[in-house]
Amino acid sequence: MPTLAELGEFEVIRRLAAVRGAPDASIVVDSGDDAAVVRPEPGGLVVLTTDGFVEGRSWRPGWIDPEALGARLAVANLSDLAAMGARPRWALLAAAVRADADVDALVGLQRGLARTLAADGARLVGGNVVAVEHEEAFHLTLVGHVHEGAVWRRAGARAGDLIAVTGHPGRAGAGVRLAARLGDGARDPRFGPLLDAWRSPRSRVALAGALGPLRAVRAAIDLSDGVPGDLAHLCEASGVGAVLDEAAFPDDAALLEAAEALGLPLDALRFGPSDDYELLLAIDPASRAACEAAAAQAAVAFAVIGRCAGDAAARTIVDRAGRERPIPGAGYEHFTRG
Amino acid sequence: MPTLAELGEFEVIRRLAAVRGAPDASIVVDSGDDAAVVRPEPGGLVVLTTDGFVEGRSWRPGWIDPEALGARLAVANLSDLAAMGARPRWALLAAAVRADADVDALVGLQRGLARTLAADGARLVGGNVVAVEHEEAFHLTLVGHVHEGAVWRRAGARAGDLIAVTGHPGRAGAGVRLAARLGDGARDPRFGPLLDAWRSPRSRVALAGALGPLRAVRAAIDLSDGVPGDLAHLCEASGVGAVLDEAAFPDDAALLEAAEALGLPLDALRFGPSDDYELLLAIDPASRAACEAAAAQAAVAFAVIGRCAGDAAARTIVDRAGRERPIPGAGYEHFTRG
Repeated sequence: MPTLAELGEFEVIRRLAAVRGAPDASIVVDSGDDAAVVRPEPGGLVVLTTDGFVEGRSWRPGWIDPEALGARLAVANLSDLAAMGARPRWALLAAAVRADADVDALVGLQRGLARTLAADGARLVGGNVVAVEHEEAFHLTLVGHVHEGAVWRRAGARAGDLIAVTGHPGRAGAGVRLAARLGDGARDPRFGPLLDAWRSPRSRVALAGALGPLRAVRAAIDLSDGVPGDLAHLCEASGVGAVLDEAAFPDDAALLEAAEALGLPLDALRFGPSDDYELLLAIDPASRAACEAAAAQAAVAFAVIGRCAGDAAARTIVDRAGRERPIPGAGYEHFTRG
Repeated sequence: MPTLAELGEFEVIRRLAAVRGAPDASIVVDSGDDAAVVRPEPGGLVVLTTDGFVEGRSWRPGWIDPEALGARLAVANLSDLAAMGARPRWALLAAAVRADADVDALVGLQRGLARTLAADGARLVGGNVVAVEHEEAFHLTLVGHVHEGAVWRRAGARAGDLIAVTGHPGRAGAGVRLAARLGDGARDPRFGPLLDAWRSPRSRVALAGALGPLRAVRAAIDLSDGVPGDLAHLCEASGVGAVLDEAAFPDDAALLEAAEALGLPLDALRFGPSDDYELLLAIDPASRAACEAAAAQAAVAFAVIGRCAGDAAARTIVDRAGRERPIPGAGYEHFTRG
């Protein structure tokens, strides 16, 4: 376990560069100069996002290995590009690490990052490593392409549009809560899908790429806070309300098990804070079947869970008995909550 | 002094967005969506860099106010783009802050950042704020343009090329050492130019823009470690050596004063670790006068301090008496030194 202090900055940078994989033809100047130089697609637009993780807050040591953490950091950023209908291309990693940190762990993180980016057509082209005394942090900037007119935004949903989600909302947040409350008890196989959703989320870039040509998506956001908060952002940007249908949510036996184990109502998990990195979409009702087919083709769970309403103040859910109530819960608040 | 925890994430993001300035026509989707969307210049290449600062290591609280810190973070990144011959356009800030941090300070930092970026034609288009318990950190990613064939790299210097620097090498590092050793004594006006170089470095983007069309620059790097280390990077990338001329260095009375006050030889400061964010260039000897004129026009100190040598192992300096000795010192090591 060589440390950063033992190896020094330049050897560490060399080892990190070694796991990036071969550069593609778009990379004119790779890392190792003052900046990277890349060739954008002619006529395309460039999409830019950054998202980062902090030790002890974004991940729990002992619950995720460095390679999985790197993969998850990639997905957190890929998810933002998927939600814009964009194709990821290049990334830079800013790592804040302790001088006594294990270089092998840092290399593992970068390997997981590089592998996950590569699966969606992106590659690390640079970064920076700074030393910290306390908690470590990793910030990724992801750059991609999108064609003019093909950009998905939070704004654009209209009354009557269907509201769809990929995956199973709330699973990642349930995984976090289980680990915090049950400790090793959370490793019970019946909670496996929840721990997987938390620790190993899947990028929805490929699905976004399949949905784009259908011209069905009117608005999009990634689920990084939880359904109530992210749906609110989409509704506010679009000037619409939302009426959800409880019966339309995907069945989720694992989430039910977790609610029981935690002594919580199912709603607290389904509508609780959860960085699932799934997509929340407003789609043209005429394209529902085409979207469902594209999701099935991509082997991604896809559920139409409600409809946009003309009343921008509406934010309700109709239960199986036909009763309408406010959508429970609120999103993750990065500063006022733990 | 409202804190992050009091205001909450979204209000903080709103206040940060308010000091970014108006978007220019290249910004298709501004911050506030899942990612920003920008329009690159037709036929141009895109340049990407990231550099970050950590509290207590990259800056000393009490020695720099938030706005100046933001400006300095901008310059650290602008400097990388200047060294590529590129034009800065868009930036993203990843901020890791404590929940009890003063939001006004964070807004001040962003204001200094935005103002300094704007002076060189760039603008913040997004970012991310995460909470930390201990030291704060700010990581900027800067994106710019460069035309094919106009990219400056570390490689490209040839034997006989002149080695030039902007500014006064070593001043920033001297400022840091004075503050560490003398405390408030470092605030003596005779050290003013050193504290300014440390706390308020100037971007060399405009000068790089003026030098570009001269086709005089064969290789470039920014001075972020110190002359010996950065010169070594340029020489290694180019496969050349370097012979410096002590008499050709710019006179620097303030640096001499600092060396005396610190009880150090001048070399320890001039060739010591120093993040001056100035340019180190290898230039075509035939273009020397044109480069000097461009620098004079831009009101930037510019000195030819040596020459590239065919012997790649050469790394020497000739003193005023004509004696040749190895270039002293070494660059900043981010992990093995404080």
